[in-house]
Amino acid sequence: MKRILIIGIGAGDPDHLTLQAVKAIGQADAFLVLDKGEAKHDLIELRQEMIEAHAREPYRLVRARDPERDRTTPAYATAVEEWRSRRADLYEAFIRDDLGDDETGAILVWGDPGLYDSTLSGIEEVVERGTVTFGYDVVAGITSVSALTARHRTSLTRVARPVHITTGRRLAQEGPGAADDIVVMLDAHCSFADLGAEFHIYWGAYLGTPDEILVAGPVPEVADRIRELRAEARERKGWIMDTYLLRRLSPFL
Amino acid sequence: MKRILIIGIGAGDPDHLTLQAVKAIGQADAFLVLDKGEAKHDLIELRQEMIEAHAREPYRLVRARDPERDRTTPAYATAVEEWRSRRADLYEAFIRDDLGDDETGAILVWGDPGLYDSTLSGIEEVVERGTVTFGYDVVAGITSVSALTARHRTSLTRVARPVHITTGRRLAQEGPGAADDIVVMLDAHCSFADLGAEFHIYWGAYLGTPDEILVAGPVPEVADRIRELRAEARERKGWIMDTYLLRRLSPFL
Repeated sequence: MKRILIIGIGAGDPDHLTLQAVKAIGQADAFLVLDKGEAKHDLIELRQEMIEAHAREPYRLVRARDPERDRTTPAYATAVEEWRSRRADLYEAFIRDDLGDDETGAILVWGDPGLYDSTLSGIEEVVERGTVTFGYDVVAGITSVSALTARHRTSLTRVARPVHITTGRRLAQEGPGAADDIVVMLDAHCSFADLGAEFHIYWGAYLGTPDEILVAGPVPEVADRIRELRAEARERKGWIMDTYLLRRLSPFL
Repeated sequence: MKRILIIGIGAGDPDHLTLQAVKAIGQADAFLVLDKGEAKHDLIELRQEMIEAHAREPYRLVRARDPERDRTTPAYATAVEEWRSRRADLYEAFIRDDLGDDETGAILVWGDPGLYDSTLSGIEEVVERGTVTFGYDVVAGITSVSALTARHRTSLTRVARPVHITTGRRLAQEGPGAADDIVVMLDAHCSFADLGAEFHIYWGAYLGTPDEILVAGPVPEVADRIRELRAEARERKGWIMDTYLLRRLSPFL
């Protein structure tokens, strides 16, 4: 049977790869590499370096152009669903056309395939279509959340207390609510900026790479600096991947 | 300067180690291994196998008895703080007595050091005491959450939706609230058992090890089976590490 491996590769440091991921890369006959356009070329390059370092010769690189997502519509979830379906078309073609019987294809995923990534649901859509027969497995990766807290040498959790993981869009719409520890991902608009001094932020961009930027401090003291660093880096590199932890500190502690 | 490396080793599979963790293990002159008593002997053995596989000769193993935590008191957070302070005594002694100048000591931590682990705050306490001078770094690890979702081949997050990570104690006290996706850790009492059929559970124990057990399904259909499997495995092995994801499914989807 044809087999797909969805391999988490970590947050940006090539050494975030697990031994399990290294072995998985070594089992693949072909790799599907999605091209996200010029701007994110660094990301594709790092993927290719990992493949070159750990793949078993001979292997094949299959390139495809990642479909564009409509970022202008307010119907965010619908736009993502539609985009994901076009992604599923690519996966289906890869399995059908680029893998021989009993061959293994691999897809390398930033961070962990389970955390705000769409590969898994794209593959599930191919399964539901029933047009190609294949098995698949998922290899866990270092999340950008773990990379963030490790670089800041802080704990994600506090004793016996919960953590809320959400998106920038939701933080902007809903505010922090009752949560005391909040991880925010996919925030293009610095939605934290209006929070008060009771919130400490641990922010990081390009985690684990030579371009890594870390800033921590009470939100009102560091918000402008993060906004400037973020805009400057995004302009210079053409893309940015960042995430942050917000921690409400009790005035009584 | 003396240096401490707090190294995440993943959820139980020796291949969860990252290349970064392998390198960090190879940099250590001494390893602090905390003995948690006979029952959890497997856990110590797996740590030692990792050290044997990746440490640079010669290295030293420093063993210490992990202080017992008072599990009978209702003042959970206070009991944890007190226990953590006695843990900090061990770390302080390790740095002071077992590391020479410019030597590196390593502490291997299950999962990720940032997720419901107490090593980091113990080390922070030693820093605050100011009794020994040292630097430290944290190496991110595969969380049991990533391992759980990878083995169930499901995503932790749904498009544009948040995830809540909490403890069994809190789930029992507070219920699921408004959260639709909830990860529960440290639940000795199967606090999910009374939830309705709108909740799907993805449960896993001993993730990544030969003893791994996975169960998934609507809570009312699988709760008894999880409870039985959990009790039987805990009895047989003397310890259990398990975690689960609860996912509320809309009746309209």
